[in-house]
Amino acid sequence: MAKSENQYRIVLVSVALNIFLIYNLYDKMVRKSRLSWSQSAWEEAEGVASISCSGHGRAFIDGILLQNGKPICECNACFGGPDCSQLLPNCVADADSGDPLFLEPFWMQNSARSTVVIPGWHRMSYDYSDNSYISHELENHIRKLHAVAKNAITDGRYIVFGSGSTQLLNAAVYALSMNMSSTPAKVVAEKPFYPVYKEQTEFFKSTQFEFHGDALLLKNTSFGNNVIEFVASPNNPDGNLKKGVLQGPSIKHIHDYAYYWPHYTAIPAPADEHLMIFTMSKLTGHAGSRFGWAIVKDKNVYENMLTYKSVADSGTSKDTQLRALKLIKVVVEDGDGGIFNFGYKTMKHRWEKLNHVLSSSKRFKMQEIPPAFCNFSQALKGASPAFAWLK
Amino acid sequence: MAKSENQYRIVLVSVALNIFLIYNLYDKMVRKSRLSWSQSAWEEAEGVASISCSGHGRAFIDGILLQNGKPICECNACFGGPDCSQLLPNCVADADSGDPLFLEPFWMQNSARSTVVIPGWHRMSYDYSDNSYISHELENHIRKLHAVAKNAITDGRYIVFGSGSTQLLNAAVYALSMNMSSTPAKVVAEKPFYPVYKEQTEFFKSTQFEFHGDALLLKNTSFGNNVIEFVASPNNPDGNLKKGVLQGPSIKHIHDYAYYWPHYTAIPAPADEHLMIFTMSKLTGHAGSRFGWAIVKDKNVYENMLTYKSVADSGTSKDTQLRALKLIKVVVEDGDGGIFNFGYKTMKHRWEKLNHVLSSSKRFKMQEIPPAFCNFSQALKGASPAFAWLK
Repeated sequence: MAKSENQYRIVLVSVALNIFLIYNLYDKMVRKSRLSWSQSAWEEAEGVASISCSGHGRAFIDGILLQNGKPICECNACFGGPDCSQLLPNCVADADSGDPLFLEPFWMQNSARSTVVIPGWHRMSYDYSDNSYISHELENHIRKLHAVAKNAITDGRYIVFGSGSTQLLNAAVYALSMNMSSTPAKVVAEKPFYPVYKEQTEFFKSTQFEFHGDALLLKNTSFGNNVIEFVASPNNPDGNLKKGVLQGPSIKHIHDYAYYWPHYTAIPAPADEHLMIFTMSKLTGHAGSRFGWAIVKDKNVYENMLTYKSVADSGTSKDTQLRALKLIKVVVEDGDGGIFNFGYKTMKHRWEKLNHVLSSSKRFKMQEIPPAFCNFSQALKGASPAFAWLK
Repeated sequence: MAKSENQYRIVLVSVALNIFLIYNLYDKMVRKSRLSWSQSAWEEAEGVASISCSGHGRAFIDGILLQNGKPICECNACFGGPDCSQLLPNCVADADSGDPLFLEPFWMQNSARSTVVIPGWHRMSYDYSDNSYISHELENHIRKLHAVAKNAITDGRYIVFGSGSTQLLNAAVYALSMNMSSTPAKVVAEKPFYPVYKEQTEFFKSTQFEFHGDALLLKNTSFGNNVIEFVASPNNPDGNLKKGVLQGPSIKHIHDYAYYWPHYTAIPAPADEHLMIFTMSKLTGHAGSRFGWAIVKDKNVYENMLTYKSVADSGTSKDTQLRALKLIKVVVEDGDGGIFNFGYKTMKHRWEKLNHVLSSSKRFKMQEIPPAFCNFSQALKGASPAFAWLK
């Protein structure tokens, strides 16, 4: 009987285990049948992500395909071979422009939180349900973001979106010059300035404005009331924090704050200017997404910028806005323990390395940026600019 | 012994089933741990998609949230209530503009094939690996698309991308006027024309061009060599297929083919003009994504348009390009059994209903569009325009 009892026990345990496992399988199948339409998309994305490119490149869903339909590795500059493992000989670094790929490892580490799934029928309308081109949720998160980064005041300010800061720079010139009593407005910037200010202003050949060169040349002259000054702070290319050269009630400033984030500079105080432009390219590193925003005090200027955006391209892509929301949520959630910390450490390390290399040169000298007190990290902070300005 | 044998069999079967189910569970867990980073994203997307809005609205991941964090239903025009089930009284239809939401059901039915998963680290660079702003894969698929739709010749032509056709219309005006011997170029369009041609050309106040009104007014005059004529075909708003009013070697045309798809019109022949503009808004209905493209014969004009795009906003969002690729792949795969068929049936049905309603009116008369032979469907095709032009 003891043997038989044991057998009964085994059958009982085994059947109980079966019931549990079958229920488990059934539950999974039901959930799978309910949650199924995104499966081929995420399987594709995870499959492509698992292709190894030796840490010097990446395969993409929308990349160039091999004949078997598998995407190839797209290698970073100076690397080649099927898996990007070969260092190309005599490869010269491009020191003229920058791609914020130094933040890519951060997003690889945080892929679970930063991935978006966009269904085929997502946001097909021109507008959001409030008839605007601007996602209310995203706007709210941008306000939270500046509160966390302590780099700009947004209370009582208007926010407008653009395709990167590139588009907003020109939208701002249009918006400001539309309110001027006489045109063409003189557009200026203190040297050395970001070359796009000149290129863009000249390219559009508007009767409303013209590029007028170095802001310093207008100082101590009676420049009238039709001047627009670009101020990049930290400045691209020399990394210095700047104020406008020209001052007075009639001068209009466009503050380009692309680099006014704790990765690149100490934040002495939250910025509180009339027209401030930020871009995701430098905050999260997503230059390819083309997303920027302007924070505007004057309602009239804000409305001019909205009109510009509407006439130029009927608003910023809803796909991009969804992705920006997801990325900015991660930045806000993490506060100082996330991308700001990661970005600052990486940039500071690079800056120290570059300083070390150039300190042995007798031909070149780099700009000096002294440590400064940072409102964000509540500490004295060493330099970590995105550009070196060689003399 | 017979009873004992039976017991052994039961134990054996039960244990075998145990082993099978445990293996199954283990395999799932291994796969889950390998394919895991997209899970929270697709669970979120599928969860929001399952919120019911009575067929008169939709909940979105980036929608406005309730206090419990759940997105609310965003209702279509004329509907309200928490689940959009209430028909609002005295709601007037907006007959002045259109949103291509009639294609939303097609994408709901095809969600498995049309969903994209965008990892946090996707395409962070400004450029693709060939240093352009344009996805090579997407460009290839656009060429395939026109071959399938039989609505445009792309062999030996250049393709440039923009934020919807809205941006490309202006990019084209800039690009064409840059090559003119004398400026400002006169920009014209035959009445009734799409109002954006005038608004946009006037808004940018360029020294290179100015809006000059109805193209017919220039006919039979010596208009010189500085004229740019917009030609929308089928025309927005009256749905007629059109050629340029002005002809001659010195007149430049911008062909707006937003509606030159088998949903809206018979396709008499593949278009083969110098500068042709298409938009995803009207092809797939994704107006919110802001994606359009121009097909250009002249290399110089193409390069001018690339420069415009580069100066205006440093290229079209990579997120949008990825999504456009996915959507266009579905259209190409399906050929005439997919969106073209769905779209044509829907639009034709609406047109017949509208005709029926208006046939009883003594005050209004609608335009007549006779059936025409369609190169795409190889049959005589009845009218299915996107706009009614009332007289």
